[in-house]
Amino acid sequence: MTDTKPAFDERLRQSASETEALLASVLSDAALPDEIARPAHLMAAMRHGSLNGGKRLRPFLLRESAVLLGGSSDAALRVGVALECLHCYSLIHDDLPAMDDDDLRRGQPTVHRAFDEATAILAGDSLLTYAFDIIAAPETTLADRLKTELVLALARAAGPGGMAGGQALDLAAEKSAPDEAGIVTLQAMKTGALLRFACEAGAIVAGSPPADRERLRLFGQKIGLAYQLADDLLDLTSDASTLGKAAGKDAARGKGTLVGLHGRDWAEKRLEVLTNEAIGLLAPYREKALILQEAARFIASRDN
Amino acid sequence: MTDTKPAFDERLRQSASETEALLASVLSDAALPDEIARPAHLMAAMRHGSLNGGKRLRPFLLRESAVLLGGSSDAALRVGVALECLHCYSLIHDDLPAMDDDDLRRGQPTVHRAFDEATAILAGDSLLTYAFDIIAAPETTLADRLKTELVLALARAAGPGGMAGGQALDLAAEKSAPDEAGIVTLQAMKTGALLRFACEAGAIVAGSPPADRERLRLFGQKIGLAYQLADDLLDLTSDASTLGKAAGKDAARGKGTLVGLHGRDWAEKRLEVLTNEAIGLLAPYREKALILQEAARFIASRDN
Repeated sequence: MTDTKPAFDERLRQSASETEALLASVLSDAALPDEIARPAHLMAAMRHGSLNGGKRLRPFLLRESAVLLGGSSDAALRVGVALECLHCYSLIHDDLPAMDDDDLRRGQPTVHRAFDEATAILAGDSLLTYAFDIIAAPETTLADRLKTELVLALARAAGPGGMAGGQALDLAAEKSAPDEAGIVTLQAMKTGALLRFACEAGAIVAGSPPADRERLRLFGQKIGLAYQLADDLLDLTSDASTLGKAAGKDAARGKGTLVGLHGRDWAEKRLEVLTNEAIGLLAPYREKALILQEAARFIASRDN
Repeated sequence: MTDTKPAFDERLRQSASETEALLASVLSDAALPDEIARPAHLMAAMRHGSLNGGKRLRPFLLRESAVLLGGSSDAALRVGVALECLHCYSLIHDDLPAMDDDDLRRGQPTVHRAFDEATAILAGDSLLTYAFDIIAAPETTLADRLKTELVLALARAAGPGGMAGGQALDLAAEKSAPDEAGIVTLQAMKTGALLRFACEAGAIVAGSPPADRERLRLFGQKIGLAYQLADDLLDLTSDASTLGKAAGKDAARGKGTLVGLHGRDWAEKRLEVLTNEAIGLLAPYREKALILQEAARFIASRDN
């Protein structure tokens, strides 16, 4: 097991670099066929909100899932870039004054700070729209049947019954605290849905039979839950050390978390259980699954 | 020619009623497969921003174009509903305080007034996302090849090189007035792209050969230009009569229009030329094209 970590680190780094390069290329100012013109200001805002480094975890999960099941790495990279556009749209809109009202992201001014609020809304809208463009475009060399499945799965993961709905629940949670079931639903939608999609999409790219697709989907669901628990623990510990208070930013905003409900010990144990369950799900793929299994460990133990 | 108007009126009315009914049905609170849950508050905001009557011109053009070329009326209705979701998202976001800051639309409070700004942003995001869901969903009984083409064409019409880009140019135009070429590009993107898509999408739904698709696309382009000219004339005349001033809302905001540049007489003549060109484009389809040709006349002469 310990041997896999350096290989994992290298592949994550390599994937982030390739994702960043393709993102930069598709977000150039040059209009595509059927487009009229791409306003330079808008494209600059889209690049500002997406070409900001980061681990590119979702494209990595998507590609590794595809490769695990024998899918095309190049096609998976393009679908991963589409997913990253969609993820970045959600960050731009979440940061808006009417939402979380954040001035900084990764140490840089948020899009509405670096540009203006209207441009940030439109840059988010455009990245969301463009995600579907990238999947459907001829350069994504997948059968139309798989493209249709990807569009549908992405729209369901991102739409009112997925990520966007999760953000709506999250805003409502600041006013009336949800119970445990409410917290689980909120988190499954807001952060879980796209992570689940990332893994499931790998199986779609590979044209895998339903059993594999379901297995990757479950894996994505488990690591989505683990991701959020790790996030909540991180929020607790980093704020506790830097601000000297017991509860972090989310708790201060009145948002309930499972860590807040059940305590740190419970959460750490639950995180371990989820990680082991995720790893176990991929056991049938034997050593081919080592990288994705390492990804599950990485998600549980990440420190930022 | 005069005989077509009653048939046209009846079909437009019938189409609006069927579009409204299907919109209401797809925007219900019940989650779809792969969705986690649909927050009631968010769905209510999506319905508020879309189930507000209206002529449903874009779905009508899409369906009539499809039927003209032998396509499925039912599939065209579903794609038309997807297009209307996307159109309504753009209205919700355009109305936001950071954009045009409008309190009323069709005499009703805009979504951010009836709900709040965050909910309006998310309702727009959700309607945009859901447009692609509807196209890709199994209930839309079209070949995957056609669905892929529809997703791509819609994303290009709506994205940074289309409608969203046009709105970015429009906001910029309030600060520095564009020249004639700039106005034409802005309008082709902001309002023209979706009208062009409506007609072209009909040909895609029908699985038509490239020549028909190109013809419908050109028809859509012409009526898109005509629509905007009629809009600018309407802005001029309605404000002139009600406010007693020569220029209307857009001119007051500093937005240049072709009517402002060339005057009313020029615009009225140009509108007639565009309408006749649009009608002429459909001449090869003989009497099958009568309804769509009447639609071109309707667009040029509408009074609201």
